[in-house]
Amino acid sequence: MKSFRKELWFNTPTRVAFVNITRQVEACIRESGVKDGLVLANAMHITASVFINDDESGLHHDYEVWLEKLAPPEPVSQYQHNRTGEDNGDAHLKRQVMGREVVVAVTNGKLDFGPWEQIFYGEFDGKRKKRVLVKIIGE
Amino acid sequence: MKSFRKELWFNTPTRVAFVNITRQVEACIRESGVKDGLVLANAMHITASVFINDDESGLHHDYEVWLEKLAPPEPVSQYQHNRTGEDNGDAHLKRQVMGREVVVAVTNGKLDFGPWEQIFYGEFDGKRKKRVLVKIIGE
Amino acid sequence: MKSFRKELWFNTPTRVAFVNITRQVEACIRESGVKDGLVLANAMHITASVFINDDESGLHHDYEVWLEKLAPPEPVSQYQHNRTGEDNGDAHLKRQVMGREVVVAVTNGKLDFGPWEQIFYGEFDGKRKKRVLVKIIGE
Repeated sequence: MKSFRKELWFNTPTRVAFVNITRQVEACIRESGVKDGLVLANAMHITASVFINDDESGLHHDYEVWLEKLAPPEPVSQYQHNRTGEDNGDAHLKRQVMGREVVVAVTNGKLDFGPWEQIFYGEFDGKRKKRVLVKIIGE
Repeated sequence: MKSFRKELWFNTPTRVAFVNITRQVEACIRESGVKDGLVLANAMHITASVFINDDESGLHHDYEVWLEKLAPPEPVSQYQHNRTGEDNGDAHLKRQVMGREVVVAVTNGKLDFGPWEQIFYGEFDGKRKKRVLVKIIGE
Repeated sequence: MKSFRKELWFNTPTRVAFVNITRQVEACIRESGVKDGLVLANAMHITASVFINDDESGLHHDYEVWLEKLAPPEPVSQYQHNRTGEDNGDAHLKRQVMGREVVVAVTNGKLDFGPWEQIFYGEFDGKRKKRVLVKIIGE
């Protein structure tokens, strides 16, 4: 069994952001030499997500509007978590809707994807350095 | 390490549908010869889900009603994604709530499941051909 | 390839509860002898979750309030599932928001975690015996 590990770093200029990391995960697979196995990509932080969907800016706008409605950041005082001095209570909720991680099949040394699947880093409390872990196992 | 890959195809007669695929995933495990490992089952399309819950028609009705409330399809113009000519903006949101994939343990050549766990294909923009990927690794 | 399997049992005193199981999953990894691989932790029941977030009691309160709003238990009759004699229709919905499972990288014999990641059992229909499955594969 081969294994591979790499951290991808982000520092988004906005509080909420969606960054396409498909090319970076593909590069990890090539570097790993794994032809057949699984790749895990997960946010290492608890106010961020890794998810798979379409690379379409209108959809990303829709996600942002929808998540703001499901878990509004204001008023900050509505979240007990913010009594700890944080203001990111909403971001912890949004991350649960969008998920922490994706697991993708690796076949013939490539992401085994449908026609529109792309991997995104989803940031809900940005403007700071945060990481995604890519772990690959297989042969 | 053994590995196995198969695509399952669907074309649901309704826009929203839940299809029990547990038997098909079990058949994949038998075909793979894997006795001990992990099975990944994921939607290959971004307006569909694979998830695990109860095979109970009342619950599936509840999921549909609840998801329509969380992400109403109408008015179509509320989603910027639909300005691309699509009318499935809501389906991209519903899929995030229900999830893209499941990872299940394989033990003694079987799905290592609790008493009520069943695997479903969740369709939110049906009436067209779409696929689920089953990938198994182990020994 | 090594593999390991263990069930963790819970019987929470309240209907909704969040239990930190990080130490128990770490103990499984040590017991497995796996230094490099993947660990899957999943609820074996369909009204419970395993998820990763912060071990902060204010946040857990926020999750509970938020989930009650997204999927209120009352009136019980609003869910067709409850016509089967159950009263836990809401719990099946909450579990989908929080997720069934987590997959975590194992590196150097440890959970490969960011600074605040902790694993939780999320119970939405407690006061009864229920289980989490921990499955580890690797070398």
